[in-house]
Amino acid sequence: MTQLLHIDSSARGERSHSRRLTREFVEKWRQAHSGTSVVYRDIGRHPAPHVTESWIAAAFTPPEHRTPAMHEALRTSDEIVDEFLAADVYVFGVPMYNFNVPSAFKAYIDNVVRAGRTFLFQPEVRDQPYKPMVRGKKMFVIAARGDSGYAAGGANESLNHQDPHLRTVFSYIGVTDITFIAVENDEFGGKDLAQSIAEARARFDGLIAAESPRRPEVQDERRA
Amino acid sequence: MTQLLHIDSSARGERSHSRRLTREFVEKWRQAHSGTSVVYRDIGRHPAPHVTESWIAAAFTPPEHRTPAMHEALRTSDEIVDEFLAADVYVFGVPMYNFNVPSAFKAYIDNVVRAGRTFLFQPEVRDQPYKPMVRGKKMFVIAARGDSGYAAGGANESLNHQDPHLRTVFSYIGVTDITFIAVENDEFGGKDLAQSIAEARARFDGLIAAESPRRPEVQDERRA
Repeated sequence: MTQLLHIDSSARGERSHSRRLTREFVEKWRQAHSGTSVVYRDIGRHPAPHVTESWIAAAFTPPEHRTPAMHEALRTSDEIVDEFLAADVYVFGVPMYNFNVPSAFKAYIDNVVRAGRTFLFQPEVRDQPYKPMVRGKKMFVIAARGDSGYAAGGANESLNHQDPHLRTVFSYIGVTDITFIAVENDEFGGKDLAQSIAEARARFDGLIAAESPRRPEVQDERRA
Repeated sequence: MTQLLHIDSSARGERSHSRRLTREFVEKWRQAHSGTSVVYRDIGRHPAPHVTESWIAAAFTPPEHRTPAMHEALRTSDEIVDEFLAADVYVFGVPMYNFNVPSAFKAYIDNVVRAGRTFLFQPEVRDQPYKPMVRGKKMFVIAARGDSGYAAGGANESLNHQDPHLRTVFSYIGVTDITFIAVENDEFGGKDLAQSIAEARARFDGLIAAESPRRPEVQDERRA
């Protein structure tokens, strides 16, 4: 069974394009892939906490040496990491705020990137001290932007610090199969926005179909 | 009189390199520029709130049409913007967390970038809807990073989404005179870290001297 982790990070509710489109994407995915189990987290309305000094101290202490206070400092992060690792597919709604991810989504990232859980930190191996620990995941990022031209080759590509950052940080922990779908022109509305939404939706079917359900016989072969 | 806004955003306290170095920089600045008034904000320990749906609705409502609840939603942001606009010089301590700014610093940015206060938003002017409203400021960003090679030409330059984002977003509101000073190798310590700190300190004097105090006669000419 496929587990899908659906996250929204927009500060807006019904007015959010990324929320509406992640919902549609997940619904279509479920229709195409029966047996998908979905876990939902709303970090737009319930942000993960910022990392703190005690969080950092705890995260870089080996688990067997952590005090109860250290385990407590990492409690939410542990939940977030467990949930992240349990999923096979990610559908993340991430609006662009000021050319980057929302602060609530950055707080989520800072809780997901964990030494010994999602990446291996070996300072003594000086030529390769960091190694990804996550494998075999697939990520879809549905972005929403006020202006336009942020895609590769667009007039504002150099101002887009959202997609490149997400690719860097998730690749760092081992999630390299990432597809970006962006809705642009939110701040101007009208037909440019409508067209952008239509184009995003048009991509959904192809993306979902490309990921055909695993056939039972293939699973059997893997188990053998 | 020059007003200097000193901000720290590290989650760490005494163990923070960026905190120690912003403190040293500001102290040296005061010695070189008598009459500098310093305002301090610690967003590492006291993060600015994430933007919310009511924040966004209030920020994009003209001030004269805002309800009391809308003014309340923007209260902290208004304080942050007032303080930002009152300063001439910024000294910001910004560690790199996961190749980008800390979530607490992103929350600060999201509160500083305000339509009608730090940038002008005119959706009807479709070819140039955004205009910066801030002028004549000087910014020093003191960054601290776990690994190394993130500077221009370095092996990890393409993974640095911190400096490029800060340059984009502060230029967007009109702060274009930005100098980056980075301490690297925090996660490895030893002589590489010590050398990086020494190099950062060595740059301070030159940077501070280059910004010579305004001479009274020049101010008089400007007034004439």
